[in-house]
Amino acid sequence: MTGRLTILGLGPFGPDQTTPEAATALNEADEVFGYATYLARVTPRAGQKLHASDNREEIDRARAALVAASQGHRVVVVSSGDPGVFAMASAVFEAIDTGEPAWRSLDVVVLPGVTAMLAAAARFGAPFGHDFCAINLSDNLKPWSLIEQRLAAAAGAGFAMALYNPVSKARPSQLTAAFRLLSSHLAPETLVMFALAVGDKAHEHLQVSTLREAPEQQADMRTIVLIGTASTRSIERPSGRPFIYTLRHAL
Amino acid sequence: MTGRLTILGLGPFGPDQTTPEAATALNEADEVFGYATYLARVTPRAGQKLHASDNREEIDRARAALVAASQGHRVVVVSSGDPGVFAMASAVFEAIDTGEPAWRSLDVVVLPGVTAMLAAAARFGAPFGHDFCAINLSDNLKPWSLIEQRLAAAAGAGFAMALYNPVSKARPSQLTAAFRLLSSHLAPETLVMFALAVGDKAHEHLQVSTLREAPEQQADMRTIVLIGTASTRSIERPSGRPFIYTLRHAL
Repeated sequence: MTGRLTILGLGPFGPDQTTPEAATALNEADEVFGYATYLARVTPRAGQKLHASDNREEIDRARAALVAASQGHRVVVVSSGDPGVFAMASAVFEAIDTGEPAWRSLDVVVLPGVTAMLAAAARFGAPFGHDFCAINLSDNLKPWSLIEQRLAAAAGAGFAMALYNPVSKARPSQLTAAFRLLSSHLAPETLVMFALAVGDKAHEHLQVSTLREAPEQQADMRTIVLIGTASTRSIERPSGRPFIYTLRHAL
Repeated sequence: MTGRLTILGLGPFGPDQTTPEAATALNEADEVFGYATYLARVTPRAGQKLHASDNREEIDRARAALVAASQGHRVVVVSSGDPGVFAMASAVFEAIDTGEPAWRSLDVVVLPGVTAMLAAAARFGAPFGHDFCAINLSDNLKPWSLIEQRLAAAAGAGFAMALYNPVSKARPSQLTAAFRLLSSHLAPETLVMFALAVGDKAHEHLQVSTLREAPEQQADMRTIVLIGTASTRSIERPSGRPFIYTLRHAL
């Protein structure tokens, strides 16, 4: 097997947040696979083929990319943000694990990227000043009871949190249920941050709220929700948004 | 106040993992502040001043940068990885919160980067295929009992983990204590990954182990330790290191 498969993250939005190593690998690929929305960020060079697919088809997409790589192509699979965070890297390795034994001999490389929660955190200041966690709020691949267990464990132990995929059309009320659960562990004035479309200057929207007021805020699939801790502070300013940060030391 | 202060992350090691927006901001700065080891990665352009300081002097460094910004300079504070993950962003906002009221009017921008745990995870495959957390194992700024509480909560709820700052000369045995604690929550065959100096081709060292064998591995301040979950798998290969990934779905 001489093919190569690179799984890379484009970063949160624009080319300014794509690492040079990811940009180079993307440019060198013959075949590029990805969710259509992310592939729309790629301008193909001459001779390069883009294979766009739907959001729900991760394993099929991974297999198609592995087939192309085993045919000797230089293949790239793109994700937004970082490819290892609720994105394509795990799907590709699952496809290898359950697929053709020969795929184990392929040269598979993962190139990290700036993940959405860190881009969102940076816009607010430094809400992850201390220990933190990332929780995918979608129950497509795990039971809601497990999500509840993780929210409670994280809140009880004082982790700041990033909630990925907080809402979808099929799951309109789970974020509200999450806030309700968190309210039994955290004070009502705990800071909650909503970051929509970070990096996309035309659509980016940032909102600072509290756990008490959070259920009234809007969120969608492009929103990352950040939950502060008892050590998260807001610095009010003469003009502009406040700076939000979490103390480095325990209270 | 017309000065500008940008807090940015250089990424894990080389310029290939520094985002273009961070590289541009660094190039435009008049004054650059940072821990000496990270500043050594910066080649100053003509007219640019570098201010190197020691590892333990975060708040003093933040204040010096804020003074320079309030004098009208274009100031950059550099971190390795991402500036919001156990790095300088939180220290700068703490310095603003407790310092000169006029500093609140400064234009302060945080530019995210590729954080070390995601670069390490990418090298192994996709060990953060599901929910995960980051825990700083240093007890310089928090009591060890809180670290123990967080390790237990994360293991009990099935989070994959990244342990930052696992060992130092002043704390030679805490990583071993952490493994011992995790062993009461996780199976002995749970996969544990050690990533030393990720991205630094001359010194990078990757090791896959299990919780049972982990205490015998070497780690230092440049090591990130990743702890898998019950859903973390190793894919053995005809040659080369195994691919490690965590299933996207709950078992």
